[in-house]
Amino acid sequence: MTSLYFEEAEVGKLRTAGPYLVSRNEIIEFAQKYDPQPFHINEEAAARSVFAGLTASAAHTFAILLSLLNKAQPYSLRTLAGLGWDELRLPIPVRPGDELYLELAILEKRESKSKSDRGIVRGQIYLRNQKREIVLQCVNTVLVARRPAAK
Amino acid sequence: MTSLYFEEAEVGKLRTAGPYLVSRNEIIEFAQKYDPQPFHINEEAAARSVFAGLTASAAHTFAILLSLLNKAQPYSLRTLAGLGWDELRLPIPVRPGDELYLELAILEKRESKSKSDRGIVRGQIYLRNQKREIVLQCVNTVLVARRPAAK
Repeated sequence: MTSLYFEEAEVGKLRTAGPYLVSRNEIIEFAQKYDPQPFHINEEAAARSVFAGLTASAAHTFAILLSLLNKAQPYSLRTLAGLGWDELRLPIPVRPGDELYLELAILEKRESKSKSDRGIVRGQIYLRNQKREIVLQCVNTVLVARRPAAK
Repeated sequence: MTSLYFEEAEVGKLRTAGPYLVSRNEIIEFAQKYDPQPFHINEEAAARSVFAGLTASAAHTFAILLSLLNKAQPYSLRTLAGLGWDELRLPIPVRPGDELYLELAILEKRESKSKSDRGIVRGQIYLRNQKREIVLQCVNTVLVARRPAAK
């Protein structure tokens, strides 16, 4: 896969990845380790919750987002570090058997004022299920390497 | 542990949890599954990164936050669902051997306008390492059950 420097990242161009198939076992195992709420690990308790069924932890959905960000096509960015995440929403829960798809578009990019070897890129992210419902959306900001100057 | 209804949640009162000891193995295993960037899974590549050493994936740090939220003392809330996360920042990376501590304070709470059985609670969250440096901060918003009316 092509991995682009800051200079080559194109504002507005859509990048995608997926599907990521979410199994019941993965939902339960992840939640048992990190977020053992009854509605993430127990079918009967989940049936009585506001979601009326087993749902993935927000941390699990976020981890799947990261997994798909690593596979975004047609290109990845030479990311140096993540800076932050804003307006992270999970409007529809992820359920066993869901297939998740990433959509990512660069909103803006600017050079770092303090360090000449990097730039800052903000992207709009949507994670959708097989019905095209948004299960996670957010804006993320990352540091991306600039192309080294010719010597 | 005491689990409180919306009515009993107290604005401003600090809740805490931790330590959560982060091992090198856990960092690498989590990242191999969800975020296989070289600086999360490979010591040598990590030494050359901007962090000069192995660091945890943002998704991993977020998962540890959820783990500690489940253990917050002196009380937990009867959370029905998470609504969103804002201004999520990871200013200092999590490294092998770090011990993480949660600090959580309710910023505001209000009754749901549409559903009488629940309320909305916003909290300020800090996750700190053993040097008291902030490794993650954010504001989160959750739905919390209201105390059922007496029959």
